[in-house]
Amino acid sequence: MSGPRSLSIRIDRDSRVPAYQQIAGAIRDAIHAGRFDDGERLASTRALAARLGIHRNTAVAAYRSLESAGLLRAGVGAGSFVVAPVMPAAVPGEAAEGTPPFAWRRLLRDPQALEGDPRQWLSARHLPVPPDAIQLTGAIAERKQFPLEDLAGCLRAVLDDAGPGILDYGPTEGDERLREWIVEQLREWGAGEIDIERVFIVSGSQQGLDLIGKLLLAPGDAVVLEAPTYTGAFLSLRHAGARLVTVPMGEAGLDLDALEALLEHEPVKFLYTMPCFQNPTGISLGSAERDRLLGLARRYRLAIIEDHYDTDLYYSGQRPRPLLGDDREGQVIHLGTFSKILFPGLRIGWLVIPAGLADSLRQIRWATDLASATLAQRALERFCRAGYLDDHLRRIRRVNARRLRAMLRALEEHFPAAARWTRPGGGMTLWAELPAAVDTVELFHQAAARGVLFSPGIAFYPNGGGRNAMRLSFNRESEARIQRGIALLGEMIAERLSVSEKGRPALEEPLL
Amino acid sequence: MSGPRSLSIRIDRDSRVPAYQQIAGAIRDAIHAGRFDDGERLASTRALAARLGIHRNTAVAAYRSLESAGLLRAGVGAGSFVVAPVMPAAVPGEAAEGTPPFAWRRLLRDPQALEGDPRQWLSARHLPVPPDAIQLTGAIAERKQFPLEDLAGCLRAVLDDAGPGILDYGPTEGDERLREWIVEQLREWGAGEIDIERVFIVSGSQQGLDLIGKLLLAPGDAVVLEAPTYTGAFLSLRHAGARLVTVPMGEAGLDLDALEALLEHEPVKFLYTMPCFQNPTGISLGSAERDRLLGLARRYRLAIIEDHYDTDLYYSGQRPRPLLGDDREGQVIHLGTFSKILFPGLRIGWLVIPAGLADSLRQIRWATDLASATLAQRALERFCRAGYLDDHLRRIRRVNARRLRAMLRALEEHFPAAARWTRPGGGMTLWAELPAAVDTVELFHQAAARGVLFSPGIAFYPNGGGRNAMRLSFNRESEARIQRGIALLGEMIAERLSVSEKGRPALEEPLL
Repeated sequence: MSGPRSLSIRIDRDSRVPAYQQIAGAIRDAIHAGRFDDGERLASTRALAARLGIHRNTAVAAYRSLESAGLLRAGVGAGSFVVAPVMPAAVPGEAAEGTPPFAWRRLLRDPQALEGDPRQWLSARHLPVPPDAIQLTGAIAERKQFPLEDLAGCLRAVLDDAGPGILDYGPTEGDERLREWIVEQLREWGAGEIDIERVFIVSGSQQGLDLIGKLLLAPGDAVVLEAPTYTGAFLSLRHAGARLVTVPMGEAGLDLDALEALLEHEPVKFLYTMPCFQNPTGISLGSAERDRLLGLARRYRLAIIEDHYDTDLYYSGQRPRPLLGDDREGQVIHLGTFSKILFPGLRIGWLVIPAGLADSLRQIRWATDLASATLAQRALERFCRAGYLDDHLRRIRRVNARRLRAMLRALEEHFPAAARWTRPGGGMTLWAELPAAVDTVELFHQAAARGVLFSPGIAFYPNGGGRNAMRLSFNRESEARIQRGIALLGEMIAERLSVSEKGRPALEEPLL
Repeated sequence: MSGPRSLSIRIDRDSRVPAYQQIAGAIRDAIHAGRFDDGERLASTRALAARLGIHRNTAVAAYRSLESAGLLRAGVGAGSFVVAPVMPAAVPGEAAEGTPPFAWRRLLRDPQALEGDPRQWLSARHLPVPPDAIQLTGAIAERKQFPLEDLAGCLRAVLDDAGPGILDYGPTEGDERLREWIVEQLREWGAGEIDIERVFIVSGSQQGLDLIGKLLLAPGDAVVLEAPTYTGAFLSLRHAGARLVTVPMGEAGLDLDALEALLEHEPVKFLYTMPCFQNPTGISLGSAERDRLLGLARRYRLAIIEDHYDTDLYYSGQRPRPLLGDDREGQVIHLGTFSKILFPGLRIGWLVIPAGLADSLRQIRWATDLASATLAQRALERFCRAGYLDDHLRRIRRVNARRLRAMLRALEEHFPAAARWTRPGGGMTLWAELPAAVDTVELFHQAAARGVLFSPGIAFYPNGGGRNAMRLSFNRESEARIQRGIALLGEMIAERLSVSEKGRPALEEPLL
């Protein structure tokens, strides 16, 4: 038996897993179970779509995802062919003859959570991207701006001063000197006098979230997130077993009416929010909204996880003040990181937690990975104390502000009149919404092949949405390349709109 | 109302939480709830013991644990006094007047798992340990043996060669060059040809365990561990929600009859084992036992997590071959680390997983903390390639072998005839069992005050046990200091035995 015709593919329309992923999953399992020969041709996407009663684009997306996974290869104009693994992995109930390899995947804790990871099917890793592609993706700093020599000097100085102890296990809560520096920074940023016992160094704020999940989340606990939000946040919380409840983002930050309505009828473990230069939208919570949020928190006894991830990157006025600074009842856990402004590869961030949780967090962190690397912490502290961080920040704020302006100008010029986008006061990304006819996942594949990378909107919605939206990063490319990238995107968007206006399906030709 | 007399303390004798911890927990909650005044005197340990029908030592241990937590202070010969927190933490049902601080501890996922952490009540952090105490504790290398200059050179060379990209986010699976080096090492160690796709760099093998838990463990899943075993392993697995089932260690490794009996009647998710130089016992699985274990694994479809944590530290014969090398069905996940031989502060280990889990692990790892620090990985690779690792290993093997012999000689000379201990062929620790009358937790406190640190046996049993056992580390102190430390311990043990032989309670005077 062979061919997708013989496969029974059932699409669950209520699932949070997109239909095309469900189809890809069924075919993948069949390939792993040895139900296809190597090189066997699959039904065309048109035929598959007709048989399953789905849009052809959905079938195309399913096949593309299998191509990315190396399980299909596309012949030019000739259909899709199975690439059967040499040794098929065992899947439940599908053991091969003889001595079957061990069925590890049957032991997976939560295959469903793994399937729902948009990074799996939006990765450019397996796409034919030109080497000099314009990177309007990634909320990370531009490499060539890293002050490498300054750091090298600090590393050497720390090794000379501290001796071999610096390479031994360090304190689980982090290096005391770096924690002291963070206490001083928090004071300067308007967070008031934070007891050093509340400050933990973590391996990036991603780990901060992981630790919060371990400390607080029991399976099924409801957590509120903004929609759209940071992909890494909802993946981390989902792996921790949380039920993800979303509140939409408005023009002045998260929609507080929606939040209040939610809190009124549902107990939640905490709210995860980025009040300043939110990722992906770049929106900051207005000052009145900020007060209202803290009021709601007090009234509903709501715990808040504040991700203060790139507030050093403000391009006008003052550094935004963390919510932590107005947290009179101790309801805020504060997350910060160096990764967005400096050396993400060092993996250093911090967590400010309520004093009553410090001992528990120390236990959890120890059992997780003992501690962060001491040498990196101490070198970073030296780097900051030497004034290198301030120098670097002044430099990248100036550069990024210009790039943001360049992107906004290019959007005015090249994006259709019906498109809308945010105008952030800081950060690294903005958010654009296109007419509903434009599917940004399809656009992503087309644009990648033409040398422009951006992040499709669906990557930022844990429970679906964002199909016609995109995140555009303005911090990694020169003004000229930003302009060229936006112009190219504008061109592809216009083509798609003109095709769809003629009433034809948005996608006729294979994109890749 | 005040005083422990008014507290209702209920001791659950079936709990895995030791009685003295239960008592400490009840008193701590009462202190946090504001039921004691600052400076209030508690009942004497003798009175408390009488009232609760427990041994006085149990009451002493409870008070000591509260002292460690900063909630009691001991007046000289005058009893114990409450140190009331200035702002009591909210506990369930016990809100203070006015605007109570936010009840974070009510949000904890699993307070019970946190209470069961022996590191909480065995920490020497708050003990009055003399500064020059003899460290027969910790499975970590001696700092002054770290080849610091060699590493400093490698760091500088990597920064020069690699450019700023080395400080950017690195691949989630780890630096390819270091992974290649590990593939070569595994080949040399007899593990055969491992596909590089199966090798992940992790931030120490502690993180490897954490990731395995996330990948495989659903709450309530049974996991088999050796008893005694590595504390960090059972804490990690317990935090992941596993039900911990233990199989005793025998003279030739874990007791395979007991394992088989267990597998016969109970489905388990996996076995966590250290086949070589097991921590804490130093015992290696015999060759026949090894074959039998793999046979059992095949027969019962048992997944095995092999922690191959310090097998570079063999003091006779050849480097032990990993189980992975004989794993014909792909049933073994292999954990390794640099931390036990080299620079634990760099936080670098590795994981070899089945090919079918690589994508899932990459997802989980990304959502956990993105990746390990690239600079440290590349510098370590350079360090290993330059031959510095081999030089270092030759040196510490020679030193450690001498120290092990010194410890064995000292044990013969100073420990009582009824004591027994292991004679490891490698690693850093050995295991001693004393006559039942000796409580090694009490001995730990006494010895710490007299300047010798060791690890009490109970720290290595997830489900109780080891009350008269101890782990002794021989890798951090000179032969002379090892000898002095063992002599001091022998003296204290002899005192305890002579006291207990006279039929008096083992502990009359406060230890501290």
